[in-house]
Amino acid sequence: MATEAEAAAMRQAVALAARGLGSTSPNPVVGCVILDASGAVVGEGFHQRAGGPHAEIHALRAAGERAAGGTALVTLEPCAHTGRTGPCAQALVDAGVRRVVHAVTDPNPRAAGGGATLRAAGVDVEAGLLAEEAEAGNAVWLTSVRLGRPHVTWKYAATLDGRTAAADGTSRWITSAEARADVHRLRAAADAVVVGSGTARADDPHLAVRGVEGAVQPLRVVVDTEATAVRPGARVLDGAAPTLIAVSEDATALPGTDTVHLPRAEGGLSVPALLDVLHGRGVRGVLLEGGAALAGAFVAAGAVDRVVGYLAPALLGAGPAVLTGGGISTITEALRLDVTGCERLGPDLRITAVPSTSPKER
Amino acid sequence: MATEAEAAAMRQAVALAARGLGSTSPNPVVGCVILDASGAVVGEGFHQRAGGPHAEIHALRAAGERAAGGTALVTLEPCAHTGRTGPCAQALVDAGVRRVVHAVTDPNPRAAGGGATLRAAGVDVEAGLLAEEAEAGNAVWLTSVRLGRPHVTWKYAATLDGRTAAADGTSRWITSAEARADVHRLRAAADAVVVGSGTARADDPHLAVRGVEGAVQPLRVVVDTEATAVRPGARVLDGAAPTLIAVSEDATALPGTDTVHLPRAEGGLSVPALLDVLHGRGVRGVLLEGGAALAGAFVAAGAVDRVVGYLAPALLGAGPAVLTGGGISTITEALRLDVTGCERLGPDLRITAVPSTSPKER
Ligand SMILES: NC(=O)c1ccc[n+]([C@@H]2O[C@H](COP(=O)([O-])OP(=O)(O)OC[C@H]3O[C@@H](n4cnc5c(N)ncnc54)[C@H](OP(=O)(O)O)[C@@H]3O)[C@@H](O)[C@H]2O)c1
Ligand SMILES: NC(=O)c1ccc[n+]([C@@H]2O[C@H](COP(=O)([O-])OP(=O)(O)OC[C@H]3O[C@@H](n4cnc5c(N)ncnc54)[C@H](OP(=O)(O)O)[C@@H]3O)[C@@H](O)[C@H]2O)c1
Repeated sequence: MATEAEAAAMRQAVALAARGLGSTSPNPVVGCVILDASGAVVGEGFHQRAGGPHAEIHALRAAGERAAGGTALVTLEPCAHTGRTGPCAQALVDAGVRRVVHAVTDPNPRAAGGGATLRAAGVDVEAGLLAEEAEAGNAVWLTSVRLGRPHVTWKYAATLDGRTAAADGTSRWITSAEARADVHRLRAAADAVVVGSGTARADDPHLAVRGVEGAVQPLRVVVDTEATAVRPGARVLDGAAPTLIAVSEDATALPGTDTVHLPRAEGGLSVPALLDVLHGRGVRGVLLEGGAALAGAFVAAGAVDRVVGYLAPALLGAGPAVLTGGGISTITEALRLDVTGCERLGPDLRITAVPSTSPKER
Repeated sequence: MATEAEAAAMRQAVALAARGLGSTSPNPVVGCVILDASGAVVGEGFHQRAGGPHAEIHALRAAGERAAGGTALVTLEPCAHTGRTGPCAQALVDAGVRRVVHAVTDPNPRAAGGGATLRAAGVDVEAGLLAEEAEAGNAVWLTSVRLGRPHVTWKYAATLDGRTAAADGTSRWITSAEARADVHRLRAAADAVVVGSGTARADDPHLAVRGVEGAVQPLRVVVDTEATAVRPGARVLDGAAPTLIAVSEDATALPGTDTVHLPRAEGGLSVPALLDVLHGRGVRGVLLEGGAALAGAFVAAGAVDRVVGYLAPALLGAGPAVLTGGGISTITEALRLDVTGCERLGPDLRITAVPSTSPKER
């Protein structure tokens, strides 16, 4: 059984892990806290970026000799494989750590087995402490490992009556500056930001992160079947962040752009094929920024894992709907969600929800 | 300046007043607490139903002789007119009350003047204590006095993407049992519940209150221009509550029903004319239960004073929108609201909002 001090340290480890969100892909976020033999915190660390040291290594370095005889609290089972940074399980053994508590067991077949390595070396291993919090913090990476495709957050902004613009197409600004700033935080936490050709044409969006200190820019992705929406001079083609244009196999790429050719499907391009390409490029978390038609295609493909809605307290009574063409024709087919959060954001509401059933059941 | 004890007593008076919601029309809700000369609570009362004693009279009866030399805390300025129950200002003077603190000054020209009566009799009068809370508690009645029409709450139930049914029209149940039970509480607090002929045709709704102890049934109102939607045997015609059918001047009333003939306007009947008739019947608070088209007509008429939205965490991507035809064509004309509440209700969210500007400015 974990002690109070261990639970507090694990809580701290979960918070540390979150600081890596958006910069560790294709790796998970991981936090680690080392307690010495007396239970005092002697080292902390988190995985900061892919290719850099794992959380355990940072924490062991901070702890130095005080790790000997101590306990390591890690949000994810320490790895056993020798990747770019060497196996953490062995490093913990070498440091003389007596006990290791990890929250989540590593589902990644390539990395798993750290627990076994530790046990074989005589270390006391416990799993599951604060597992729910640690799972939530690593939802993006865990989903991507379990499903073999990136985790998708669909973000939308709409009025209370579900419209994204007025009847004449005007929409600046439905939501507040606070809500728009929050979107930049979502982008900073994502590895890729995706929009459809309709949005590219209507808004010429920039899609890069602004105003978030230390943010790693996501890959900007435009789903543009005919390769006609992104034209030279488009804002998405500036140097602020990398950009990928997805077009059909028969379309001609815009010269000088990073373009991928994908099979066609209903509505445009195949969503699974797109996600597959992104996964192959190391993208673990996708922020889908719309519009309504592309979001509908993701819903139809069972590829929405989280919804973040910015609801402006306003009524329009006319104008485009926030979601179209999800392939749902009757009420029993509705995509049911569980609300995970509802907060005020300036004058607006931010509602967060996740599907009630896993994508495998859908 | 009001004392701590007086503020606490006023808070209690505001809570007492709320117990009359739904049964005092055309009168306001009012609460009263009497403190004796030492500041101890010796009497409490609230206005329970039109025609019954006012809050002050209930509280004075409870206090008896202990009111002499004491203080009365009242949520609304005591009345000076001799109506069905005699002026409360005089009753307070007769009881020897030394000081009267009221939260809100009575805007009703017929009833106002109680403060002057009290002052003339040498009573110390103070106004404005907890005025905001008391105003909110009496929003329905105050709106009806100030605008000369009933206060309108538009209630809707929709998915996160603003739909009230799936593409095939199915909608049972979008929201949860908890949300549906809450609607019965809204009905119990209203004097009239209004729906359009489209809803009457599609749902054959009952519209009476179920499951709320001691509720006064509201007047059920169907806006049925051609007098064709409410047919013999309609559930709304049972004996559970009174029912009014609004039809055009040239339509033929269904025999045996309480029917009012109103002028036509865009979309059907004139909303102001309907509200005028209801106001004349003593209705102060209307619960507008839809559907989308009638709600749009109320929005266009500037006759929505509060919005209560039950949002089900579900996505449909197709199906009827929750609000149509509000006469809004561009974003600057949007009906902007201020969120006053956002609570979880079972799996659903309940969002309450009021227009950011008063109907006079709209
Ligand atoms: N409020 C918000 O949250 C928000 C967010 C984003 C956008 N918007 C607004 O939404 C509007 C654009 O929305 P939209 O629905 O017209 O366009 P969209 O969803 O951005 O793009 C739709 C287009 O993407 C292409 N596409 C490629 N593969 C697809 C697939 N599998 N399924 C569906 N589409 C696919 C299709 O065109 P091709 O096949 O020809 O390429 C399709 O017409 C703009 O006015 C924008 O301002 C609002
Ligand atoms: N989810 C919810 O909160 C909710 C609530 C209620 C209803 N609903 C659903 O909404 C659907 C019905 O909605 P709806 O929009 O079709 O019908 P509706 O709004 O209930 O009724 C509209 C009809 O009312 C009559 N009307 C009279 N005066 C009017 C005026 N000034 N403006 C507009 N209409 C006026 C018109 O028909 P006539 O002139 O011919 O009489 C009009 O077609 C049903 O399927 C129902 O289940 C959902």
